[in-house]
Amino acid sequence: MRKKQEQVRQRIIEAAYDSFWRSGFARTNVDGIAARAKLTKRTVYSYFRSKDDLLAAVLRHHAELATTRLQHIQDRMPTDRDGLIDSFFGQLAGWARSTPRWSGSGLTRLVVELADLPGHPARPIAQGAKATTEAWLTERLREAKVAGSPARARDVMLLMEGAMMLVLIHGDISYMEAAASAAKRLVRKRG
Amino acid sequence: MRKKQEQVRQRIIEAAYDSFWRSGFARTNVDGIAARAKLTKRTVYSYFRSKDDLLAAVLRHHAELATTRLQHIQDRMPTDRDGLIDSFFGQLAGWARSTPRWSGSGLTRLVVELADLPGHPARPIAQGAKATTEAWLTERLREAKVAGSPARARDVMLLMEGAMMLVLIHGDISYMEAAASAAKRLVRKRG
Repeated sequence: MRKKQEQVRQRIIEAAYDSFWRSGFARTNVDGIAARAKLTKRTVYSYFRSKDDLLAAVLRHHAELATTRLQHIQDRMPTDRDGLIDSFFGQLAGWARSTPRWSGSGLTRLVVELADLPGHPARPIAQGAKATTEAWLTERLREAKVAGSPARARDVMLLMEGAMMLVLIHGDISYMEAAASAAKRLVRKRG
Repeated sequence: MRKKQEQVRQRIIEAAYDSFWRSGFARTNVDGIAARAKLTKRTVYSYFRSKDDLLAAVLRHHAELATTRLQHIQDRMPTDRDGLIDSFFGQLAGWARSTPRWSGSGLTRLVVELADLPGHPARPIAQGAKATTEAWLTERLREAKVAGSPARARDVMLLMEGAMMLVLIHGDISYMEAAASAAKRLVRKRG
């Protein structure tokens, strides 16, 4: 019984994640999520009190996925300085290219959409996921013997967020290549 | 009569701009815009057929404002390489710091919110405004004798978009300073 409940809960979360990522938070409603999960709205509400609660659960789930995804990126990544940067931005470009109607980072998108609601539960979860990525990059750069790896990881974060946004705005993947090139120049340079 | 109509049209556009920037596109409705403009909903609809049409007008107006804003930034900006970069990011940081519930670039925010609607009229207007900023940066860097100014202007764009996003996510203005520092290193470095 417990197991069945957990499965239904998971099905709702996955349907909600899909809907939020596709259409944003405001344009998604619980009817649509219930339909996608092939459940009644009443069932969805018996698991989650509100769309906001559902969003918080989706974000926690997404933050866990993000850790798995970083591990997956790492598995296919060389460990030398230039190689790891090319691989990191190359894998992001591959994701953008292979996803129909790619909408960039789901977490970034939600924070932007909820920008006027600073107390929203989505905020700390998105912050945590971005901090995890920055710490992961710091570790990769440190292993590649890059001096000042925390500051250089921050440079890569800035270029990555900027590139995802400009690829999304212009529909032009070359911003990802420009970001990789700038990142390589920054980690190479001393001082 | 013409003049009166133009004033009402402008009042609607300003109320809509304010609402969209505050709460995003989806969570804004025509009732709210009409109330903010102190007009009836019927009057708003006599000027604009739909919320989408209103958004297109707002974006055109915003793109014009953006040009004025770049000129304003330029007026207070030194013309040397490091000085202009510090001034550019410093003025962005000042804007973020002095605006309650600052939500980053309104254009970026709208594109993100409408990411799953690539045919939306908002898209080409946002693209045009970002391209204008990139061309303006190219010109400033060229005047400061920076080699390869179009590629370096793109580096600055990537860092600026990334910084606005990470300041918004973390509520930590130091990402703007990190972006300025990375930009200075990139325009200094050759090759």
